[in-house]
Amino acid sequence: MSKFEYALHATDGAARVGTITTPRGEIETPAFMPVGTAATVKAMLPEHVRQTGADIVLGNTYHLMLRPSAERVAALGGLHKFMNWSRPILTDSGGFQVMSLSKLRKLTEVGVSFQSHIDGSKHMLTPERSIEIQCLLGADIQMQLDECPAMPIEHGDARESMLLSARWAERSKAAFEEKANPGQALFGIVQGANYEDLRHESLRRLMEIDFDGFSVGGLAVGEGRAEMFRVLDFTTPHMPIGKPRYLMGVGKPADIVGAVARGIDMFDCVLPTRAGRHGQAWTKIGPINITNARFAEDPEPLDPESACPASRDYSKAYLHHLVRAGEYLGPMLLTWHNLQYYQDLMSGLRAAIGAGALGDFIAEFKANTGEELV
Amino acid sequence: MSKFEYALHATDGAARVGTITTPRGEIETPAFMPVGTAATVKAMLPEHVRQTGADIVLGNTYHLMLRPSAERVAALGGLHKFMNWSRPILTDSGGFQVMSLSKLRKLTEVGVSFQSHIDGSKHMLTPERSIEIQCLLGADIQMQLDECPAMPIEHGDARESMLLSARWAERSKAAFEEKANPGQALFGIVQGANYEDLRHESLRRLMEIDFDGFSVGGLAVGEGRAEMFRVLDFTTPHMPIGKPRYLMGVGKPADIVGAVARGIDMFDCVLPTRAGRHGQAWTKIGPINITNARFAEDPEPLDPESACPASRDYSKAYLHHLVRAGEYLGPMLLTWHNLQYYQDLMSGLRAAIGAGALGDFIAEFKANTGEELV
Repeated sequence: MSKFEYALHATDGAARVGTITTPRGEIETPAFMPVGTAATVKAMLPEHVRQTGADIVLGNTYHLMLRPSAERVAALGGLHKFMNWSRPILTDSGGFQVMSLSKLRKLTEVGVSFQSHIDGSKHMLTPERSIEIQCLLGADIQMQLDECPAMPIEHGDARESMLLSARWAERSKAAFEEKANPGQALFGIVQGANYEDLRHESLRRLMEIDFDGFSVGGLAVGEGRAEMFRVLDFTTPHMPIGKPRYLMGVGKPADIVGAVARGIDMFDCVLPTRAGRHGQAWTKIGPINITNARFAEDPEPLDPESACPASRDYSKAYLHHLVRAGEYLGPMLLTWHNLQYYQDLMSGLRAAIGAGALGDFIAEFKANTGEELV
Repeated sequence: MSKFEYALHATDGAARVGTITTPRGEIETPAFMPVGTAATVKAMLPEHVRQTGADIVLGNTYHLMLRPSAERVAALGGLHKFMNWSRPILTDSGGFQVMSLSKLRKLTEVGVSFQSHIDGSKHMLTPERSIEIQCLLGADIQMQLDECPAMPIEHGDARESMLLSARWAERSKAAFEEKANPGQALFGIVQGANYEDLRHESLRRLMEIDFDGFSVGGLAVGEGRAEMFRVLDFTTPHMPIGKPRYLMGVGKPADIVGAVARGIDMFDCVLPTRAGRHGQAWTKIGPINITNARFAEDPEPLDPESACPASRDYSKAYLHHLVRAGEYLGPMLLTWHNLQYYQDLMSGLRAAIGAGALGDFIAEFKANTGEELV
């Protein structure tokens, strides 16, 4: 079985439940993908990532190309074997992080040249090289190289940037067809900032090239939740029904709930892992900071009813102690708990959509967290 | 069943195999106790500590009395519940770490006054207070407060220090009889530096007081392996046969093998955990530094035949990458591997002694590691 397929099972309003089938296993959608930047979901054992319910993890092309390098990962049998994760992996193109992390970057029609933030070494990332790297890593789902401009941006500049991304999409597709193995998938990335006409034009151009899935890029860059949802409102209704839709880099639980309601199928975000390393735990009533003095003698676990050991078997007082004392186990347990929270959120959303009860789910989520979902 | 008992099963020369029975479970000896200083074996989940074969862990009274405090741990149900470890726990008296870590310490007949290295707060540790703390923590095996002088030390000074420890032993025993629960145990600590007559006198005084087990203290403080073994050679033959013998703070694998051959039953050391956090892995042929460039493309795991996932499921190249990239998973996996190595060493020693084949075991250990065991 070497096909990549998306099957839509049920809808509730714009929200969708489906399954992505890959040669390395199925991905139930809506799906949250834990971020494994440098070939590890930080502070997690891979078997525990899986135990939370994650069907797929994300790897960062930018980090991996610099250390240990795509060629070395390939020589060692590919990213799955390297990080001891046998299920699907999605890699980004590297473009976003080149622009945010590297030094002396220069963007031209050909691609982006830059210096490594680790050792200053010089590199060039083109659409073709990005695909080559993602194939060397062995990513099951690969992303085209794109440009992700900051907002606010003038319409003219936004269109120019979107057209560059569209040309890179075409080059990415050509490189992918040459290099990829059967069953691997390539996603195009819809750009166009917060302009409806540009998002539509971007999507139309990508659909002409034809991709296995479509990402919405250029959001979650500081525009705010209401603006992000406004862009989704005029974008997702035009996206193909039979292909997965991925909102990149999103987000907080409330962002995810609102985006699922608007028809998004896939998410990734460093929030649950990063928050876990900084003493923050996500709970049914929202995030708490475990270092707060009020938890110092709290004998209750984060979630006594959870099947996750990290949520169930350790008191808040103990977690408070661990984080205050700078012990490894604090980030380890809080990260695990947060990833479980996120996966439980996704399975709750899937069940609610399947039962035609997303409205109730959202009402309860709002009541518990006090979050606005617009 | 609320008794503390030691049963001797077999000997091979001076070496012994036995079982310590406690209300919280059995401890097979010779035993290595992973160090869980601040209520956590650093970078380890408690279930994985157990999975390596550890029957007992050690907690540090000095650290726990300062943070989160013995009273808070007691209010939260004791150290076992706090750290989610249901099997036996041994605590030290706090004395050694007061002298090595705290500020402005002052030693008198009454005890040691000192300032916390964490926040500068003032504390007093007496034999009675140490036992009180260890009882609040709920330690299954407790240690008397003692003074551990640096070597070299003059005979007269060494005797004075040993006599102070002996007086503290008596006060510790009285406090323990008043505060402890049935089944909890108290160990006396043999001092006397490297003087045979003082070690004998110390032991005789402790045996008169009567303890559940006897520790050899004041070693592994820089005197060297040969000198440590020389002290053991004239000490252990005089220790009671029917009680466990604990060599505190030891050690490297070769130290342990040599001390087991000299009749020691219990060990603790930060080495496997600390080394794991610094990129060092213990293997059958000795320690390796995983950050060394020669491991960058090594596809082999640390021990393909191990039952331990950390030793078996990740290549040296991956571990190299993780440690170089500063990822949490590097210390997590290397610590786990090192603890497995230590527990495998202990079970190997127990099997060899039981089979009357300790000589062969030691010969093989020497041949593999190139270590001198004197």
